[in-house]
Amino acid sequence: MITDRGGLTLDAEAMFAARQRWQTRAKPPGALGTLEDLACKLAGITGRCPPLPPTRPVVVLFAGDHGVVAEGASAWPQEITAAMVATIASGGAAINAFAKVIGADVWVVDVGVASSGPAAVSASGGESESCLGVVNRRVQAGTGNIAREPAMTRSDASEAVEVGRALAAEAIDAGADCLVGGEMGIGNTTPSAALIATCADRSAEHVTGPGAGTPADGLDHKRRLVDAAVARAAGIEDPIDLLAAIGGFEIAALGGFYTAAATRRVPFIVDGVIAAAALCVADRMCPGTATMAIAGHRSSEPAATVALEHLGLEPILDLDLRLGEGTGAALAVPLVQAAATALADMADLPEG
Amino acid sequence: MITDRGGLTLDAEAMFAARQRWQTRAKPPGALGTLEDLACKLAGITGRCPPLPPTRPVVVLFAGDHGVVAEGASAWPQEITAAMVATIASGGAAINAFAKVIGADVWVVDVGVASSGPAAVSASGGESESCLGVVNRRVQAGTGNIAREPAMTRSDASEAVEVGRALAAEAIDAGADCLVGGEMGIGNTTPSAALIATCADRSAEHVTGPGAGTPADGLDHKRRLVDAAVARAAGIEDPIDLLAAIGGFEIAALGGFYTAAATRRVPFIVDGVIAAAALCVADRMCPGTATMAIAGHRSSEPAATVALEHLGLEPILDLDLRLGEGTGAALAVPLVQAAATALADMADLPEG
Repeated sequence: MITDRGGLTLDAEAMFAARQRWQTRAKPPGALGTLEDLACKLAGITGRCPPLPPTRPVVVLFAGDHGVVAEGASAWPQEITAAMVATIASGGAAINAFAKVIGADVWVVDVGVASSGPAAVSASGGESESCLGVVNRRVQAGTGNIAREPAMTRSDASEAVEVGRALAAEAIDAGADCLVGGEMGIGNTTPSAALIATCADRSAEHVTGPGAGTPADGLDHKRRLVDAAVARAAGIEDPIDLLAAIGGFEIAALGGFYTAAATRRVPFIVDGVIAAAALCVADRMCPGTATMAIAGHRSSEPAATVALEHLGLEPILDLDLRLGEGTGAALAVPLVQAAATALADMADLPEG
Repeated sequence: MITDRGGLTLDAEAMFAARQRWQTRAKPPGALGTLEDLACKLAGITGRCPPLPPTRPVVVLFAGDHGVVAEGASAWPQEITAAMVATIASGGAAINAFAKVIGADVWVVDVGVASSGPAAVSASGGESESCLGVVNRRVQAGTGNIAREPAMTRSDASEAVEVGRALAAEAIDAGADCLVGGEMGIGNTTPSAALIATCADRSAEHVTGPGAGTPADGLDHKRRLVDAAVARAAGIEDPIDLLAAIGGFEIAALGGFYTAAATRRVPFIVDGVIAAAALCVADRMCPGTATMAIAGHRSSEPAATVALEHLGLEPILDLDLRLGEGTGAALAVPLVQAAATALADMADLPEG
């Protein structure tokens, strides 16, 4: 586990004030369990006590394709990425349903989809809860096959990171006070597992899971693909070089998105294994980014647990979701709001 | 575990249709984990597929006092019950903060508070999100000391159950489509543990926990109090007699509340150990009530786990809350909404 990242740190004074404030609220000490820790963390992120309850969550979902699907890394054909981007853009995906419940806008960003299909039709983020189109920031039409070649050039990796940074800034400037990062990309658990294995210094065996369905050629085969990618990344420390070697465009963009949110000290929520991989890389790009993250949901993918332990994060929810799209992070938003609202609104302990 | 309760049952046809509908939504099979089961259960409760996403949750919180506090059953003085009722009525409790986040009204009902303090000032339920006062349905000013005497008369037990039934009916008639039951009562984990031990046929050792703080005279002493109450209830099968022997006014009212919600086939959410005790009794009063319940949060009190296993329920959240007030149930509302909204709104699986 990382113990000292340097760089960004939680505001210790605001966190201490939050801990003190909990002690005098109208409830027994510690009775709100993990929500008390969560509100303290929000104080640490935002530097305020009590932290303002987020009221304008925004979901930004990055989509990209992966050359490694040519090796049978996924149970699903690559065309599903573009098809799902279109589904999300038209409001028909799980993330749209969850965003509706939490009152969040959904922005879908094509940062590396392979198909020239129905994606990339519009150039601006959504203005309303319904999704008006796809933000076109495509860097390339999918990555190289990381079992045999680099994922992308260093320049493309930088560009994808910058897309994520820019989208976070755009959302924050538009008033977002809680950022949910999402992703869509058939095959993206393979590069994510490889990135996590590399960052946390674990073997393919410890990080390979079935993803969104057991891969076409079986789990052992997927493990060999992860192994090949991990070997390709051997000795690489620089996060941009790491993304170029074995990353993905949506992973790079998510990483940039997280660093921008952390730097602006706006709460952001991560969920599954792709988000965890992006956070590992983000924490290398901008040390301390992981300290600022809120882990929304425990993924059943083994690499996610490896990454969260490595980064010292404990997730709020465990709903056995294995979908991506930012669904696990979106569902944690009401709990973040509840924690902050309780700390802000609750009266002093009554005298009995 | 109860295997056949008879009485109320989930609508098998609607549940089957829900399961089928999930199979064709735009996601891998099973990818929404426990939320898929939850939406199927909602279909079974309401008899509709897809079930309508609840949009008007209401929290009804019942308060009562417990004579057993004279024995040192709680770390807190009895006066805290009335003081917290006043805090809830003025919007300053944790449940008010959570209700604000989920957009729910909070009704506070004095069904057996001992103090003649600031409770019982108004006679009607809240009309808005803020709490306008306390609904006065006080049956008695607290229960007898169940370590030495019956909690209440059979007639008072019936009356308290009827209060809960009437409040559920009132909320449903006012448009509530998801009911959260809450409770407040210093000392109420002791009768709850005793009721659960009796219903699930377990000993005091298996059901006694620290409640809202280790009791004044220690956990062993509390265990002896639970033991004495369990002995008092020996051989009693009738649920009203059981409440009269070792119950509480708010527990009886919650039990009635649950039976009415189940009978009207309106989803209701239970959380901690008091709610679980009330549900055990409710299921005896109206068999099948527990089948209709949604378990919102896993309480850390051992009796809660005993009760949920006995009733065959698996909770959605595990946030280490130990407060009561319906807080764990309220926090599950957005997940219930998310499950139903996803099943209703999601598009068909795209063709790749």
